[in-house]
Amino acid sequence: MQGIFISMEGPDGSGKSTQITLLKDYLEGLGYETLVTREPGGTVISEHIRTIILNKEYTEMGYMTEALLYAAARAQLVTEVIAPALKAGKAIISDRFIDSSAVYQGMARGLGVDNVYQINSFATQGIMPDITFHLDLPAKVGLARAKGRAALDRMELESTAFHERVAQGYRDLAALDRNRIHTIDATASIEEIHARIVQLMDQYFKSKQD
Amino acid sequence: MQGIFISMEGPDGSGKSTQITLLKDYLEGLGYETLVTREPGGTVISEHIRTIILNKEYTEMGYMTEALLYAAARAQLVTEVIAPALKAGKAIISDRFIDSSAVYQGMARGLGVDNVYQINSFATQGIMPDITFHLDLPAKVGLARAKGRAALDRMELESTAFHERVAQGYRDLAALDRNRIHTIDATASIEEIHARIVQLMDQYFKSKQD
Repeated sequence: MQGIFISMEGPDGSGKSTQITLLKDYLEGLGYETLVTREPGGTVISEHIRTIILNKEYTEMGYMTEALLYAAARAQLVTEVIAPALKAGKAIISDRFIDSSAVYQGMARGLGVDNVYQINSFATQGIMPDITFHLDLPAKVGLARAKGRAALDRMELESTAFHERVAQGYRDLAALDRNRIHTIDATASIEEIHARIVQLMDQYFKSKQD
Repeated sequence: MQGIFISMEGPDGSGKSTQITLLKDYLEGLGYETLVTREPGGTVISEHIRTIILNKEYTEMGYMTEALLYAAARAQLVTEVIAPALKAGKAIISDRFIDSSAVYQGMARGLGVDNVYQINSFATQGIMPDITFHLDLPAKVGLARAKGRAALDRMELESTAFHERVAQGYRDLAALDRNRIHTIDATASIEEIHARIVQLMDQYFKSKQD
């Protein structure tokens, strides 16, 4: 089988983890060996970088420092995990990838998507997701869900205005790359969202056979 | 007084710390308020990043991860320390700055100086040292000195060939930017090296008055 790289994107609380578990089971049913990872993280070094990025004491962190740390964690994840798994024909599902940097740092922080892409061109080795699911949710709904489950990290503690720029940023990014990024209404039920993801995956596999 | 940014560069064991202390005293004698910092490090966040970069357990670290981590630590140092200190008219002396990345990651790791500069253009806010002292030393001499003083970190544990590429890389870089980078024979005595640095500083101040 040929490797496939899938990313799950969306605001905190949009249900990415739940949908990743369901998608993993679906892909294994198709015979795929799967690998689930997350950003920032997924390797020992990247998880160590994650503790810096999300440390809520580090309120003085500059936006460029933040963007470079995400890129560093990504570079290690690509080198150590994603590139080898793709080569081995696995289905990789990542909870966040480069679109998160484009939206959070490029748009919501205002660094510019062009700058963020340039930094990340060094991190990704040109590897982009084959297909991306954008779980779309009003910022307030996502934040309320995230608050309900655990202590908030440095990013989650950002202002409501920031999270609204994130939610809108995802919509804008998806509008610009409809071939890869599929926006799904994340206020629907877990089953409805999964059914839509399966439908889109089947379309993707069919398009590859043609 | 106008701020001045000085970087001290060279292989491990070339005597940078000793010369920084002497230079600091000299500048304070001229009436400068001084600020000494180091890379990677110099802020709480950058020192935390330093523990990742130099951790000798992290032998799996990719070269691009390494380059991005140095840039992240630098971005925070520039934002939090160097830019404000320059604005306040201080004399900043940094133990390593962007030239270390050009030499260690760009040249010795083979990432390319052009790529390293591009990554760092996001980290430095365009701030470059006004004057740089390159303490030139054969790789073997520097390594022997470094080994004598403390447990070696991840970079110091690199091969002799790597450290030879670093030593030569510094010479090449200095040859390309003689206006800013001054190469000094670091096998000379501490007093001789300091006298040469003072002479070059005086020339620099004089050139600014003209």
